[in-house]
Amino acid sequence: MFLYWGFVIVEFLLNSASLFLISNKRLVMSLNRKKMNLEWKGNFRFEVKNEKGLAVKFDAPVKYGGEETSLSPMETLLACLAGCTSYDVMSILRKKRQNISGYWVEAEAERAEEPPEVFTKILIKYIVKGNNVSKDAVERSIQLSMEKYCSVGAMLKKTAEIQTSYEIIQE
Amino acid sequence: MFLYWGFVIVEFLLNSASLFLISNKRLVMSLNRKKMNLEWKGNFRFEVKNEKGLAVKFDAPVKYGGEETSLSPMETLLACLAGCTSYDVMSILRKKRQNISGYWVEAEAERAEEPPEVFTKILIKYIVKGNNVSKDAVERSIQLSMEKYCSVGAMLKKTAEIQTSYEIIQE
Repeated sequence: MFLYWGFVIVEFLLNSASLFLISNKRLVMSLNRKKMNLEWKGNFRFEVKNEKGLAVKFDAPVKYGGEETSLSPMETLLACLAGCTSYDVMSILRKKRQNISGYWVEAEAERAEEPPEVFTKILIKYIVKGNNVSKDAVERSIQLSMEKYCSVGAMLKKTAEIQTSYEIIQE
Repeated sequence: MFLYWGFVIVEFLLNSASLFLISNKRLVMSLNRKKMNLEWKGNFRFEVKNEKGLAVKFDAPVKYGGEETSLSPMETLLACLAGCTSYDVMSILRKKRQNISGYWVEAEAERAEEPPEVFTKILIKYIVKGNNVSKDAVERSIQLSMEKYCSVGAMLKKTAEIQTSYEIIQE
């Protein structure tokens, strides 16, 4: 009888441990991993989906044999940088209780002439519109994004010099 | 009279020179520059367009305050890598006259735990389906993409170790 309960307790402990390991692994997977699946759609058209089915499409420029039905990967890469830093900036401006009614970014990139033609210089201009928008808040949010939080920026600045500027439109 | 023709010739030469400069500058601009415009669409939703109006949308994950109506910038970044290398691989396989009927890529990335949470490791698996597909051609196209042509890969590998593998499905 004691032996039986001994087994039950040991089994319970083992199960808890493995459940903990599984749930812990899942947590790590979901927080720190990304998985994307690409499918060829003919010529140079590709569709890439995440595990929930959200998708992005790519095509090549006409001069490289594509049909320009979607953005190219390099255009989208520049868009990723604009999107990533905009998440930071809008998120920080919200925390700083700024009343934003409009927000735009103009991103320009220069590429190297030789393959692999990486971006060598990127200019990001933030345009923030709102009521009584603080210059300091805008400057600080851009600085925090570029120096601390923006994941895409932290990767691209290893090859490209990134310069920022901003304009505030007071309502 | 000679003076007049002198002026005409000088003017012609100057015009030619400036036309050459303009067309040369335009050529460089169109080949080596990218320009993207982002617009805020509420909460953490953003839309980014190129000059021809082709667009990509971003949203943030629910855990970061978004609504997950579109991919995040970091998911899209991984998609860009898959799209960029796929352009190279499919383009080289076409030049090598391979009969490809299906093509997929599985891309997985691990992120650093501390901000800016860059990608630290990326696994790219190419799956190529076709009639009598050459193993050498597939291997060579992946190698050329990763070592020479893939612009996105050349940038991301400054922070992330990129590992590749492939599978061929013969028909």
